[in-house]
Amino acid sequence: MANVVITGGAGFLGARLARDLLAAGSLDVAGDGERPLSRVTLLDRVAAPPDLAASDRVTVAEGDLAGLVAPGQAGRYALAGADVVFHLAAAVSGECETDFDLGIRANLHATEALFAACRAVGTIPLVVFSSSIAVFGGSPELPLPAVVEDRTLPNPQTSYGIQKFIGEQLLADYTRKGFLRGRSIRLMTVSVRPGRPNAAASGFMSGIIREPLAGQRAVCPVDPAAEVALASPARAIEALRCAVTSPDDVWGGRTAVTMPGLTVTVGDMVAALAQVAGPEVTSLIDWVPDPAVAGMVSGWAAHFHSDRAARLGLAPDPDFTSIIRKHLADTQPR
Amino acid sequence: MANVVITGGAGFLGARLARDLLAAGSLDVAGDGERPLSRVTLLDRVAAPPDLAASDRVTVAEGDLAGLVAPGQAGRYALAGADVVFHLAAAVSGECETDFDLGIRANLHATEALFAACRAVGTIPLVVFSSSIAVFGGSPELPLPAVVEDRTLPNPQTSYGIQKFIGEQLLADYTRKGFLRGRSIRLMTVSVRPGRPNAAASGFMSGIIREPLAGQRAVCPVDPAAEVALASPARAIEALRCAVTSPDDVWGGRTAVTMPGLTVTVGDMVAALAQVAGPEVTSLIDWVPDPAVAGMVSGWAAHFHSDRAARLGLAPDPDFTSIIRKHLADTQPR
Repeated sequence: MANVVITGGAGFLGARLARDLLAAGSLDVAGDGERPLSRVTLLDRVAAPPDLAASDRVTVAEGDLAGLVAPGQAGRYALAGADVVFHLAAAVSGECETDFDLGIRANLHATEALFAACRAVGTIPLVVFSSSIAVFGGSPELPLPAVVEDRTLPNPQTSYGIQKFIGEQLLADYTRKGFLRGRSIRLMTVSVRPGRPNAAASGFMSGIIREPLAGQRAVCPVDPAAEVALASPARAIEALRCAVTSPDDVWGGRTAVTMPGLTVTVGDMVAALAQVAGPEVTSLIDWVPDPAVAGMVSGWAAHFHSDRAARLGLAPDPDFTSIIRKHLADTQPR
Repeated sequence: MANVVITGGAGFLGARLARDLLAAGSLDVAGDGERPLSRVTLLDRVAAPPDLAASDRVTVAEGDLAGLVAPGQAGRYALAGADVVFHLAAAVSGECETDFDLGIRANLHATEALFAACRAVGTIPLVVFSSSIAVFGGSPELPLPAVVEDRTLPNPQTSYGIQKFIGEQLLADYTRKGFLRGRSIRLMTVSVRPGRPNAAASGFMSGIIREPLAGQRAVCPVDPAAEVALASPARAIEALRCAVTSPDDVWGGRTAVTMPGLTVTVGDMVAALAQVAGPEVTSLIDWVPDPAVAGMVSGWAAHFHSDRAARLGLAPDPDFTSIIRKHLADTQPR
């Protein structure tokens, strides 16, 4: 049997992952063969979506993560017997820039508390940490290389990126010590992210597609020539699942794996939107440059080549029109 | 006036640094010109050496660092008005491998508490963090390169190395946010370290010189062919001082600077000892291989090339005989 815990389980990726796991009904943990899914526990500070909360295979624990997993608390009990823990809960980049202490609490202290709790349960769970390409950045003394590779030195330029990179380091050491089996996967910016806008600086990369498709205006804060790397929700979920199912020798080590990304310009994205949905839709985009966002985006890595990801069978989305079509299919009323 | 705080100020490097600063009587902070040294405060969990404790320019606060710098505690008061903070306090590598929780407490939580306290004082002090070449390491998926350069990706293989690397990341972000002016300098293994053996896995790199020179037997746990990189105490102090005195543009950025090291084999070290002190001294070395230590040492970086260190005017020791001669001069009764 496979007992799975998802932090941030009420969020967009967490809930989608939970639904996928429940639909599959079984999970192959590190290549040891498919095991029936016995339980999915969702830890989140907000309520789980009703469809998940209603499932008799789902347990929900609501609260701030660090508190939830403290000794004697609900999350700590929920970890008992865990085979797999997906750690997706995080404060996003924009929030962490605005409120430094929130980022430290939500991304650093809560992550450390979770790893300590995973150690304490004694089952040596497989722990997948959702890191981020926000770990990469450039500074005058250490510019971002033209292509980010597996041995590129992260040089985070945001608190969020720093906190994710610290999480990778902690997880690697917990793994080396045998306290848990950690795997860090650096997710791409997800586009098109459904739902409402969040405080991530990369939010526009979904907003300029999602809002116009829903007949609403959207602001694009960067130039059409700006290059970004992104992945569809389906590819992000695939990367998270791959981090569980791969045998140890295929996964390849304790350092983080960077998932593949599709490199496009913002202009390409909008052209794809016009192609799929027509120019009347793209006319809903207001081009209002925001130097703060544009500055951040220009510092993000946009070209990736990960040998490890390729060996794991992970591939980028083929093009942005297919991403838009998947988004339409996902969000159509059923 | 320059008000200096040294964590680990009762330790070997901290006390030597304090004595050097007091003897100089002034300090140039970030190239802004020499300022008279008003105060040196030593924070340590052990008592300060008597000569320092007796100085009317020295203040001592004794206790565990995280407790000392908590709001309302002695160390927090001691930081008030600080212009420069040297953070040297740490649990050493061997201790951290034996006692994971000690390392987390002493190297991670205490470091974070110190940075938070430096932020809280509001003077935006220049904070020098003594990191370590223990951040470098190799793993099957990411072997150590033949030469470690400024853009080499650290891949720590010990808890100590992980904790030091996390400290670098935190300091970089505190600096980016303007809470303090942080500079991380990765110290080499210091040889010859005076005093008694400690629990560092690299301890033999001093012990095989120090003990025989004092007429005592010493164990060498590695093969003479083992290559190591090291620096004399004087070069380590020089690197720490350089991290304070360099103007911002010369220091070069928020990523860590790796100090230069002299690459030698253990056999070279012993040959230099024979040259300086005679074969009767080297006959006091017992070659007793310890696979655990040898394994760690073989994973350490031994060849370094740091452009930033060179631009800062830092150079390795010229040879190991000069290091031994300096050690003899330093430890001779006066």
